[in-house]
Amino acid sequence: MTPATRLEHTLHHEIPISREMGIGVAGYDGRQLRLVAPLSPNINHKCTAFGGSLYSLAVLCGWGMLHLKLAEAGLHKHIVIQEAEIRYLLPVDQNMQAECSLDDGAFQRFLRTLEKHGRSRLALDVVIRHDGQPAVEFSGRYVVHG
Amino acid sequence: MTPATRLEHTLHHEIPISREMGIGVAGYDGRQLRLVAPLSPNINHKCTAFGGSLYSLAVLCGWGMLHLKLAEAGLHKHIVIQEAEIRYLLPVDQNMQAECSLDDGAFQRFLRTLEKHGRSRLALDVVIRHDGQPAVEFSGRYVVHG
Repeated sequence: MTPATRLEHTLHHEIPISREMGIGVAGYDGRQLRLVAPLSPNINHKCTAFGGSLYSLAVLCGWGMLHLKLAEAGLHKHIVIQEAEIRYLLPVDQNMQAECSLDDGAFQRFLRTLEKHGRSRLALDVVIRHDGQPAVEFSGRYVVHG
Repeated sequence: MTPATRLEHTLHHEIPISREMGIGVAGYDGRQLRLVAPLSPNINHKCTAFGGSLYSLAVLCGWGMLHLKLAEAGLHKHIVIQEAEIRYLLPVDQNMQAECSLDDGAFQRFLRTLEKHGRSRLALDVVIRHDGQPAVEFSGRYVVHG
């Protein structure tokens, strides 16, 4: 099983509403994670994606990225979202795709703090594009502890 | 049918994932709207409410408040979430209840701008409590247009 497939199982098992939303893992290369979800279960009355579903996809993309990077470092910790901001720039009227890219320097600093104090915070940005343009910008602060 | 019952039908019909989440309208008195959702469909692996479900409940509480107040003013407009911030203060390990209270002065200014320009923005705060303590604080900016 690849890390991407394992993450999809983890999401569906640990957060059942992610299965109802149809969330899947589209790709992971060690630096970027892409999550997808079909429009249909996440639609609103304007035939675009519901803002709450866009948020859920984004917050899970950041969570998934951190989960995968911690697993690569041999760490199995609690990851909690502490606060987040989201901006809706364009309506999304097709299947959703979220991307989270990791800044390796920031992640290494995060790991050193985690090792030293048993607790650390990391800010992660997620973007959801529509026809190549940023449609949703999300920024979340995650806390990791033992 | 009361405005609260009608809003619940509207939410379930227009945003189908809200039905999967079990979202219901607990009360509305013209100044405050309360939405509820059971923990079970919105649970995560730590047996607390998933952060995305808490966000969805909060964003719909603000949306519902604006929908009801516009209907009272005889207006049927598009309501779109433009941007939002959320802070998770405490984990929620029971059924969720969100409250949105309206500042009447701000709403009257919002209505005047809407009448004049056909478009207006309103910031709404929503709180989700746990044993009486604020567990989630949400602030959303909604845009309304014709």
